[in-house]
Amino acid sequence: MNRQELFQQIVRKRSYLCIGLDTDITKIPKHLLELEDPVFEFNKAIIEATQDLCVAYKPNLAFYESLGSRGWKSLEKTMEIIPGDIFTIADAKRGDIGNTSALYARAFFQQMHFDAVTVAPYMGEDSVKPFIGFENKWVILLALTSNPGAMDFQLNKQEGGEQLYEAVMQKAQGWGNPDQLMFVCGATRAEEFKHLREIAPESFFLVPGVGAQGGDLSAISRSGMNAQCGLLVNSSRQIIYASTGPDFASAARTEALKVQQEMKNLLEETDLLS
Amino acid sequence: MNRQELFQQIVRKRSYLCIGLDTDITKIPKHLLELEDPVFEFNKAIIEATQDLCVAYKPNLAFYESLGSRGWKSLEKTMEIIPGDIFTIADAKRGDIGNTSALYARAFFQQMHFDAVTVAPYMGEDSVKPFIGFENKWVILLALTSNPGAMDFQLNKQEGGEQLYEAVMQKAQGWGNPDQLMFVCGATRAEEFKHLREIAPESFFLVPGVGAQGGDLSAISRSGMNAQCGLLVNSSRQIIYASTGPDFASAARTEALKVQQEMKNLLEETDLLS
Repeated sequence: MNRQELFQQIVRKRSYLCIGLDTDITKIPKHLLELEDPVFEFNKAIIEATQDLCVAYKPNLAFYESLGSRGWKSLEKTMEIIPGDIFTIADAKRGDIGNTSALYARAFFQQMHFDAVTVAPYMGEDSVKPFIGFENKWVILLALTSNPGAMDFQLNKQEGGEQLYEAVMQKAQGWGNPDQLMFVCGATRAEEFKHLREIAPESFFLVPGVGAQGGDLSAISRSGMNAQCGLLVNSSRQIIYASTGPDFASAARTEALKVQQEMKNLLEETDLLS
Repeated sequence: MNRQELFQQIVRKRSYLCIGLDTDITKIPKHLLELEDPVFEFNKAIIEATQDLCVAYKPNLAFYESLGSRGWKSLEKTMEIIPGDIFTIADAKRGDIGNTSALYARAFFQQMHFDAVTVAPYMGEDSVKPFIGFENKWVILLALTSNPGAMDFQLNKQEGGEQLYEAVMQKAQGWGNPDQLMFVCGATRAEEFKHLREIAPESFFLVPGVGAQGGDLSAISRSGMNAQCGLLVNSSRQIIYASTGPDFASAARTEALKVQQEMKNLLEETDLLS
């Protein structure tokens, strides 16, 4: 999916919600466990209940890998049922030496048909570049993450005064353009969004940390939006585990609708919809 | 496997060789492609031919993931046939927010029974700690990698003068001790090994980059060994693709033997074997 198509979807749905399919077999409703592939059945119900309210789905690979090849199979089946006009993100946080990153790119873009994959920047250019250059596919590079450990290295000041995450964002914009490269910018750092937007004015940001992690949607949106919205705000647990009973899918829809309505209001504050 | 057992294996085999099972379906001998699981059959033959010469096997996950759930299955089967006294490393370079890293740890340590997993440090403490504390299991944290992109951020000087990889190694030693935590230190930077050893005197280093990437085994060993050897030197392509014909396994053995003999000589220069 290209940037224009993503923006059109945002306008059409009045939403920049990404739903994290962090499907944990220990947390899904018990009645699903009797089925042959409970993780897939859970995802299927969530997708059917929310697909008109979100513009992206983001399975985190850890949840699938924790079940081994069986989990990987559930993910493959999930990818097959996500409607083609919805943006898909493999939240994998990969990154390795060049020839190895190229294989990860093949796995996520060609085998599984994801639109985007999250990548960790620590190993530098040749670990990121193999993901760039697939037509209408995206790298989403970790910049400033939403977890407490972001303080350990990402905020370190380099000689010259810029922080590590700033160096990452600056340098990476030489590796790919805003049609190829997004950044992960955590919602728990709402006060940083004006600054993040200055560093990368045109780029989309994937924003985790709204909901369970406590980020503030309106503050982030008002500071972080650009002329094509430029935000994909992720919510996982708050939506997909809204209920653990047989009504889990409709409860997920109710939660997603709340977020989408808030997003609609925030979009209407701007001139993006006109 | 604990540190003492790893050292005993090194002494017994006169080897600190780790063989990278970077099994690429496009590079393995053609006659294997007729079998039901070519990747597994290739690994099986390599393991049978080299298990007395190496102390560790390190499958890089990218090669398996590029084949989807089928590749994951080949990896599971491979893990089942690696002898229990050989150290196993999931070269996965994972790292995510705390609850998600915990799932990766479950995947590699409990589902697949690896002894160790490589982890990327960018997301800091809560992304690394969930891997630490499993009994006799190890985190191998990326410090100074062997690829060109290592120069992009790892060598950045921080305010105060230390480079990012030094900050990573210093800080991480507060998260786990040398019985829980190793570091990836690339062999392409042999001149750094004295310094790396000063930063982490007791830790094991996993050293990629010997062989195809050009690192110098003797220089690294002389600068990097500690009282328990403290090095696992990895070679992948140079060994496993020594021949692409039907003799691939014996050719791999010949290459592994060359490296093991050089390691034996280097070990005999020290007093580790007495």
